Amino acid sequence: MLDFEAALARAEAETGVVPPEAVQPIVDCCRAELFDFQALGEAAVDSGNLAIPMVKALTALVKVKDGRASGYVHWGATSQDAIDTGLVLQLRPFLQALDHDLGLLCKALESLVKNHRDTVMVGRTWLQQALPVTFGLKAAGWLDAADRARDRLRSLQAVVLTLQFGGAAGTLAALGDQGLRVAAALAARLDLALPALPWHSQRDRIAEAGAALGLLIGTLGKIASDVTLCMQTEIGELLEPAGKGRGGSSTMPHKRNPVAAAAVLAAASRAPGLVATLLAAMPQQHERGLGNWHAEWTALPDLCRLAGGALARTLDTVRGLEVHGDRMAENLERTQGLILAEAVQMALGARLGRGPAHDLLETASRQALREGRHLRDVLRDIPAVAAALSAEDIDRLLDPKGYLGVTQDFIDRVLQRRS
Amino acid sequence: MLDFEAALARAEAETGVVPPEAVQPIVDCCRAELFDFQALGEAAVDSGNLAIPMVKALTALVKVKDGRASGYVHWGATSQDAIDTGLVLQLRPFLQALDHDLGLLCKALESLVKNHRDTVMVGRTWLQQALPVTFGLKAAGWLDAADRARDRLRSLQAVVLTLQFGGAAGTLAALGDQGLRVAAALAARLDLALPALPWHSQRDRIAEAGAALGLLIGTLGKIASDVTLCMQTEIGELLEPAGKGRGGSSTMPHKRNPVAAAAVLAAASRAPGLVATLLAAMPQQHERGLGNWHAEWTALPDLCRLAGGALARTLDTVRGLEVHGDRMAENLERTQGLILAEAVQMALGARLGRGPAHDLLETASRQALREGRHLRDVLRDIPAVAAALSAEDIDRLLDPKGYLGVTQDFIDRVLQRRS
Amino acid sequence: MLDFEAALARAEAETGVVPPEAVQPIVDCCRAELFDFQALGEAAVDSGNLAIPMVKALTALVKVKDGRASGYVHWGATSQDAIDTGLVLQLRPFLQALDHDLGLLCKALESLVKNHRDTVMVGRTWLQQALPVTFGLKAAGWLDAADRARDRLRSLQAVVLTLQFGGAAGTLAALGDQGLRVAAALAARLDLALPALPWHSQRDRIAEAGAALGLLIGTLGKIASDVTLCMQTEIGELLEPAGKGRGGSSTMPHKRNPVAAAAVLAAASRAPGLVATLLAAMPQQHERGLGNWHAEWTALPDLCRLAGGALARTLDTVRGLEVHGDRMAENLERTQGLILAEAVQMALGARLGRGPAHDLLETASRQALREGRHLRDVLRDIPAVAAALSAEDIDRLLDPKGYLGVTQDFIDRVLQRRS
Amino acid sequence: MLDFEAALARAEAETGVVPPEAVQPIVDCCRAELFDFQALGEAAVDSGNLAIPMVKALTALVKVKDGRASGYVHWGATSQDAIDTGLVLQLRPFLQALDHDLGLLCKALESLVKNHRDTVMVGRTWLQQALPVTFGLKAAGWLDAADRARDRLRSLQAVVLTLQFGGAAGTLAALGDQGLRVAAALAARLDLALPALPWHSQRDRIAEAGAALGLLIGTLGKIASDVTLCMQTEIGELLEPAGKGRGGSSTMPHKRNPVAAAAVLAAASRAPGLVATLLAAMPQQHERGLGNWHAEWTALPDLCRLAGGALARTLDTVRGLEVHGDRMAENLERTQGLILAEAVQMALGARLGRGPAHDLLETASRQALREGRHLRDVLRDIPAVAAALSAEDIDRLLDPKGYLGVTQDFIDRVLQRRS
Repeated sequence: MLDFEAALARAEAETGVVPPEAVQPIVDCCRAELFDFQALGEAAVDSGNLAIPMVKALTALVKVKDGRASGYVHWGATSQDAIDTGLVLQLRPFLQALDHDLGLLCKALESLVKNHRDTVMVGRTWLQQALPVTFGLKAAGWLDAADRARDRLRSLQAVVLTLQFGGAAGTLAALGDQGLRVAAALAARLDLALPALPWHSQRDRIAEAGAALGLLIGTLGKIASDVTLCMQTEIGELLEPAGKGRGGSSTMPHKRNPVAAAAVLAAASRAPGLVATLLAAMPQQHERGLGNWHAEWTALPDLCRLAGGALARTLDTVRGLEVHGDRMAENLERTQGLILAEAVQMALGARLGRGPAHDLLETASRQALREGRHLRDVLRDIPAVAAALSAEDIDRLLDPKGYLGVTQDFIDRVLQRRS
Repeated sequence: MLDFEAALARAEAETGVVPPEAVQPIVDCCRAELFDFQALGEAAVDSGNLAIPMVKALTALVKVKDGRASGYVHWGATSQDAIDTGLVLQLRPFLQALDHDLGLLCKALESLVKNHRDTVMVGRTWLQQALPVTFGLKAAGWLDAADRARDRLRSLQAVVLTLQFGGAAGTLAALGDQGLRVAAALAARLDLALPALPWHSQRDRIAEAGAALGLLIGTLGKIASDVTLCMQTEIGELLEPAGKGRGGSSTMPHKRNPVAAAAVLAAASRAPGLVATLLAAMPQQHERGLGNWHAEWTALPDLCRLAGGALARTLDTVRGLEVHGDRMAENLERTQGLILAEAVQMALGARLGRGPAHDLLETASRQALREGRHLRDVLRDIPAVAAALSAEDIDRLLDPKGYLGVTQDFIDRVLQRRS
Repeated sequence: MLDFEAALARAEAETGVVPPEAVQPIVDCCRAELFDFQALGEAAVDSGNLAIPMVKALTALVKVKDGRASGYVHWGATSQDAIDTGLVLQLRPFLQALDHDLGLLCKALESLVKNHRDTVMVGRTWLQQALPVTFGLKAAGWLDAADRARDRLRSLQAVVLTLQFGGAAGTLAALGDQGLRVAAALAARLDLALPALPWHSQRDRIAEAGAALGLLIGTLGKIASDVTLCMQTEIGELLEPAGKGRGGSSTMPHKRNPVAAAAVLAAASRAPGLVATLLAAMPQQHERGLGNWHAEWTALPDLCRLAGGALARTLDTVRGLEVHGDRMAENLERTQGLILAEAVQMALGARLGRGPAHDLLETASRQALREGRHLRDVLRDIPAVAAALSAEDIDRLLDPKGYLGVTQDFIDRVLQRRS
Repeated sequence: MLDFEAALARAEAETGVVPPEAVQPIVDCCRAELFDFQALGEAAVDSGNLAIPMVKALTALVKVKDGRASGYVHWGATSQDAIDTGLVLQLRPFLQALDHDLGLLCKALESLVKNHRDTVMVGRTWLQQALPVTFGLKAAGWLDAADRARDRLRSLQAVVLTLQFGGAAGTLAALGDQGLRVAAALAARLDLALPALPWHSQRDRIAEAGAALGLLIGTLGKIASDVTLCMQTEIGELLEPAGKGRGGSSTMPHKRNPVAAAAVLAAASRAPGLVATLLAAMPQQHERGLGNWHAEWTALPDLCRLAGGALARTLDTVRGLEVHGDRMAENLERTQGLILAEAVQMALGARLGRGPAHDLLETASRQALREGRHLRDVLRDIPAVAAALSAEDIDRLLDPKGYLGVTQDFIDRVLQRRS
């Protein structure tokens, strides 16, 4: 808000609206360390917002230096101008830092994809083993979504980094016919976009920022969900990076708790309600919202904190992720070949027709399950199968590495999109 | 879903994956009127989704025509491919219709702006009278936000109109090394974008669609909120279009209930929770979500219905809106000049300094309020004011039309952005 | 709504407000099958609610039978009286059916608890194996929460089954001084509570109903979450009941998809947003809400459907749940004794002090993990342990059945609370 | 959490589980001022929760005093026991303070009801003037709902003030067969209810607490909504209490901004999303949630803060509310009698039949509206009316005080419920 006030004084001097000599005394006082935050907070209870006591305190500070200049503090502006533009000015470095960290995350994910494009693991649907995939493919899905989240947040900058400056009712009346010139100069000084008109009670930019953060958090939550599921003791395919005191349990020395993922999933639990608050706050009354505008004041910062924290934790996890290819291989064998029944069925279908092949495999799979035998052995004993497929054929068909479809093409497409 | 199945058969024949003669029998059966929706719905309870019984029923229909072709129904695909792509194919005409109606709304709003750019009314903040604006400026704010909503939904099309085709675990394994060629042919046939890789458990596109609809509904809710507040009996500046049986009250013949606005505000109350559901559903497990994917099935269609309905009602309202300039003028006089105290203060400030001017006006305003007199009369009686401003000056300063700042510039900027 | 109108006519005749001969013609027409729902729905678009065209149609029907009686249809009432009381009258059988089904669920859970109070399985925290529990204890937690959900919904009946009858603005002015007598008679006829005053714009009862349903759905979601996690291929401890076409996968014949749990989890994903909508709708304007009241019309019925469906699916699952004690026993051995390190540590602590015991076990556990050996074997090789514990002691301490604490007491307490 | 640890040591000594001499050293160190909160917060990032570093720091503190006693810190407990019970111990004084303040609010509302039971004002539906009510009746609606909110929060205490104590997996295994005795002693010392079994992953009590707070906030939001609508410049019937610097606008000296109501409405905008988060967090995994439990840590405290703040602001507003009966009377005349058309219609209906009376009044009302005349004058000129009603009859019927139905009875019922 102080950056807004300082730039406003400069812009108004530049456009001849306030005397040039008023600028320096104002600018000199626009330093946060001169203000008593506790006192401002308390005064805001009665005034209804933080800008009113801030302007009052700023005016008092300037007055000490230069009585006349103090008359030009906040000239022609309204509280919401300072609050909204102040928010936007805080969003800028936040969004830049987020973009930077997202860049690092995408790079770390890219390494993961490249290192594990051939690390075969089981794909799971409905939490059930389905067909083989590679860990590189799973990570390529994470990367592809993280790239989209980054694009979305970059586009957002053009939308949300926009000056709010409208005066008491959005007409800049107090500046006479100079309002637009001042607004343009102010936007230029703050390096913000000049909107077609003030957006004091049109809050879609703010809600869109919240939605973009919610989408990022959801994407990070997907990674965290996969990691925690793969970290289960019974699965053990992935582990969050270890460290002294990290994720340990005071009573169970062998556990590796997914503490970073828990923080990310907590963010993913919190974000939807916060985005909903911002959307619900959109129908603001007339020329300034009442209650709904005020709800934004905590909801959007909460989302920023959650997004920043979730991203930092995810970056840390992805960089140090332990990938246990041995456990992945073991888990591929859990169903004793059943997850590759489809591979055999497709091969058999080409020779016997789809229907008979389907029925044969259904019978064989159930038998394997019932008798606790490997599907390979059951299949070999079925004459109709044996007539169509050799033992080597069956072995080959039941090798997970041989039934990955266009996994590598999909991975290439994700990587190429980035290069 | 049937369009997906028909296109899949064609794409697979085109790429040599299924025999060409299988296509026609399949395509011929992909007609909704051949299916028993009630039976499909009941079967979905056990199967867990609608695609399984649909594929079963389709296969049975094809079998009657051509036993061999029936073996190629849904070849290499999984239920989610049909469900997600089916959804996308339904979103396309919906988003196009929305864009069309939004175009009409923007046009109607543009007329409103042009017709009322000079219709002075009071601007209100905190639900209190603040300063004069024009109704054209208020409507320009609506228009500017509606334009952004339209841009956002247009951008969304490029994101969301994307093929989902990954087979059982996202590798298209059942199609061997032909998966990508089939996917490309299928995307081309359906005129959908081909994604870098399947998005079965990366749901940001869906959640982003929900958010964009939520943002549109919020923007429409803002219009509805303004309309209902301006329709209050005590304000009476706007009225929803009338019509036989419209908004009437059975017991109060004089009332004009804002029935369209109520429907829009109801949509604005429902939408945030639905968007939150979609965001919360993003961390889907492994290669297919469990429960969270299923939550999308009703949440997104609900949002579409609410958005479509809210837009239709808003369009109807804006086109037929009754604007009562006389009531606007009356309301500008409610405070007996107090809402223009700032105008006098600014003029006085130029002569006496900002501080003294502020104190003078504060005193005069309180006196006017206390004595129930017009601010003009109070000001005339104050010697310090009379010394600085003539009676004509005061009258001019207290004329709302004279204190509109850069209202016209702002309106022009919004209109120019469109031309 | 028709039940409301019929009872209103009777109550008003009983209190002498309308002539007794008006009753029968009105009551005779209050039958749903006489109405064209499609037409009512279409008329509601313009009228703003369903009660207005319903009253109009009812009046027309009565008029055919008895012109004079038609003048007493809906006498002294307002649309909201019919809509809100109509909703309450629909909630009654719904809440009774829910209570009935919850009774069945609790009974089914009680059987599960009793049958499996000694079925040892691993307890998991952070999705990591922690300590042994019994499946009976896990189910006792489900039962205890289901009991609370049932209590909560029973208490809700006293709150929500309340007459709404206030006339146009909540004063029953059209009934002169007879309003309260009519209200009491009407409440008695409908067997609803008579509130202190009408609640047309005080919606806490409705939002509380939504919250109670949301809490039930959350409790069912917890059961579904546990079931799906235990159904994972790698864990395999529980299976949803099977059935023809149930949970099968068209391409993976071996899978058992948790289709019922998915439906319950979908409900648990939808409910929070719907409850939020009802809470957000509470600040209704003056004597009747605008938009927020209307949002209730779909949000509460949606919650009812989700709760009813989720309960039916859970009941079905609990009744037919396959409990695989063998897999539970296998999983207890997955960590090769590590999950019982605490048991050894406590026993050792009693002899060596807590600190040294903790350090010893930490070292031993890490060694066991690193070397892939059973903790038993590692412990036996540590002199300090061997000095304090015999091989039999170690075996006993590493037996999951021996480290269940007061599991049985907890189970008894839950069962006793019910008897 | 420290109160939990101290009581745990005492309860365990009392039941003979830890040596009595370990108690005092532990209890002496359970003082918040001995801990470095910043350091605990930082350590929680790696440990995953605050209890782990707290227990570590507590143990270190005790060790300085008594090495042996330090071995009994947190004996048999798990982090969640300290965190959940710590939360419950914080909720107790919060709920008590809330109850106290709600008692004051209800008392203040009762005064408002009594003082204004005869202050006639217009009742409004759809934001349109409907029929007369009294301000006492409106306030009685507020009071009745506030009473219910208080009852709900009192019932909640019995539900939520419950010990959580289950050890690592909810079996209290580390305490052997003494777990239940320790739990009972601990509950008694902390004056908390002893649950049937631990509730570590059954979170309905927490979500119910959130819902009850959300319902309170919604009820306060309703009061705030009414106050802000009645404070509109054009209505001016109510004003928030004034005070130096309160609700003033720096640029508009005449405005009285509803700053307290804005804070309450902001809380009402935030609460639904937070309650939704708690409900969505209910399906916690197995024996401890992952991410969802963690989401509670900020969501419930946020709700507490919002509820406490909203209640304080509402109490302040209700106590100092300025009620402008003159403006209420003025507003009753705004429609020039139209809001009493129903009264005339009912009287006329008794003589001419309901249909003809309705048609007459509809015609007269439209004429009055069209010609800008008072309904009284229009009615007098209609022969059919004049034949049935004298001028005095018409005057009497158009007096708002005469058409209040059973307003006084409703008020009495609310007041009697409290005495």
